[in-house]
Amino acid sequence: MHLLIIGAAGMIGRKLAERVAATGLIGGEPVDRLTLADVIEPDVAADFSGTRAAAVADLTVPGTAEQLIADRPDVIVHLAAIVSGEAEADFDKGYAINLDGTRALFEAVRLIEGYVPRLIYASSLAVFGAPFPDRIGDEFHLTPLTSYGTQKAVGELLLDDYSRRGFLDGIGIRFPTICIRPGKPNAAASGFFSGILREPLNGLPAVLPVPDTLRHWHASPRAAVGFVDHAAGLDTGLMGHRRNLTMPGVSATVADQIAALRDVAGENAVALIRREPDETVHGIVSGWARDFDTRRALDLGFQAEASFREIIHVYIEDELDGALPS
Amino acid sequence: MHLLIIGAAGMIGRKLAERVAATGLIGGEPVDRLTLADVIEPDVAADFSGTRAAAVADLTVPGTAEQLIADRPDVIVHLAAIVSGEAEADFDKGYAINLDGTRALFEAVRLIEGYVPRLIYASSLAVFGAPFPDRIGDEFHLTPLTSYGTQKAVGELLLDDYSRRGFLDGIGIRFPTICIRPGKPNAAASGFFSGILREPLNGLPAVLPVPDTLRHWHASPRAAVGFVDHAAGLDTGLMGHRRNLTMPGVSATVADQIAALRDVAGENAVALIRREPDETVHGIVSGWARDFDTRRALDLGFQAEASFREIIHVYIEDELDGALPS
Repeated sequence: MHLLIIGAAGMIGRKLAERVAATGLIGGEPVDRLTLADVIEPDVAADFSGTRAAAVADLTVPGTAEQLIADRPDVIVHLAAIVSGEAEADFDKGYAINLDGTRALFEAVRLIEGYVPRLIYASSLAVFGAPFPDRIGDEFHLTPLTSYGTQKAVGELLLDDYSRRGFLDGIGIRFPTICIRPGKPNAAASGFFSGILREPLNGLPAVLPVPDTLRHWHASPRAAVGFVDHAAGLDTGLMGHRRNLTMPGVSATVADQIAALRDVAGENAVALIRREPDETVHGIVSGWARDFDTRRALDLGFQAEASFREIIHVYIEDELDGALPS
Repeated sequence: MHLLIIGAAGMIGRKLAERVAATGLIGGEPVDRLTLADVIEPDVAADFSGTRAAAVADLTVPGTAEQLIADRPDVIVHLAAIVSGEAEADFDKGYAINLDGTRALFEAVRLIEGYVPRLIYASSLAVFGAPFPDRIGDEFHLTPLTSYGTQKAVGELLLDDYSRRGFLDGIGIRFPTICIRPGKPNAAASGFFSGILREPLNGLPAVLPVPDTLRHWHASPRAAVGFVDHAAGLDTGLMGHRRNLTMPGVSATVADQIAALRDVAGENAVALIRREPDETVHGIVSGWARDFDTRRALDLGFQAEASFREIIHVYIEDELDGALPS
């Protein structure tokens, strides 16, 4: 089958392409053709044995979506988006890319007669906004408190409607916060969730800007790629007309994260974390959801880690070749 | 103040204009200017004592929204939409009018610097889709099962985001099914809810296509106009960032409706109802919501009727000059 990944230069897109190149499979089916698209040149997955192509493509440019799907890929993974902070800072750009870009893709698919690809749409926990219960269930309403979250929620509604009408076969995935993100620290408000583990695991100091009691919802990059892979092979007949799912994850406080770090890497690693309260960061992340009851996704076979120890071990296996630096 | 009603040729728009013309008020404030717009020429509310204008305007035509709001109306009531059946039959037209038309209006408002009108947006119970609990609360998720419901739900999300960012001061109103609609029978699947009361009250036969046990959510045209009027004067500071509300109403079975008809107009009126089961109609309306817990709207002072007897009396007062035809 032919797999198209839009937003292939991002962290999940890259890891998904690597996994497909390594296994030759998506959703359990052989992939003989892989097309990677992003607004910047994506890696071409050089070790993929089938036909591969990389495209620089911007969904906001008229005709781009049509070109990308002209060869009718069987599975489309739509990860392209601008992030929360930028969508809040630039109202027009956020709506143009996250809403109109997504709609352009759905429209291009709709307008090809008889073409009904599996379309996996990256949504976000940002569709939820406080106040909410301590544990959010599958039937809680979407009340985003950012333009990004609004745009993602609109995409979910469109995905449901286009699927119901038979124009595409959609699954929307609300990713947990991805932890431990590989690479260097970044400026995102959520960056410390990964930083307080990643830096100490690499023998480097890290800053913790929030209280230990802060609770949030996490899954590893490997789990995130696994969600997409599972969605690609899922029988959507089991989902009815509700095609958007909150993904499973680990609900953990910062204290839980630090305890797991202590278990895995010892007290010296924990000592590298410096507490430096930042009210701005705390203000942002304290409004985020803390815990979810993801019964639907679990019943449909989606899987994440069971503990933060496991999340740390995934990082060590996937990013540090299986062992802590000596 | 200046009031603009878009969709003023529809039933609620006409009745709202009549009420404003009669009272000279909206939300308790004097109206000195009234602009009525629709895709067909609306009545001009001839008995309104202030400055009045009627405009033929289609929000899907570029520049139309900008023209309508060029004089910066203080309150905008946006009722314009194509209905559920047509939006389902004509996908492009439904999205063009119900989604893009609404967005064009919001965008036109946003792009006028320093202009933040009260904007009342007509939403619908069609944002809800089965399966749902017997009684739907204020935090139940929106899972529309029609393109119309999808378009209305997208409008709700945009209304919240534009309000949160200070571009407009929005209130979204999910109207109950309006009963008793005045006028002639129409082809809508929901038409019988009004027909089985209106026709017998006028001495005419009516057809009932569904079982007596079918339960649904109703309010009178007078209550519907009252919702808009109340929204126009409401302190939106009390609403936080959640600007969309399910309106109060009467949850009643068809048997409840008929019992109320018997109370008000006697057994001879009830005898004019002929049972003629229609599986198509039943299939459509049996998927509709039956009952709501509308605590938020009630706490904010929105009011509907308390019983179906009251709904029938409103019809007799407002449409039959206070007495049944002899």
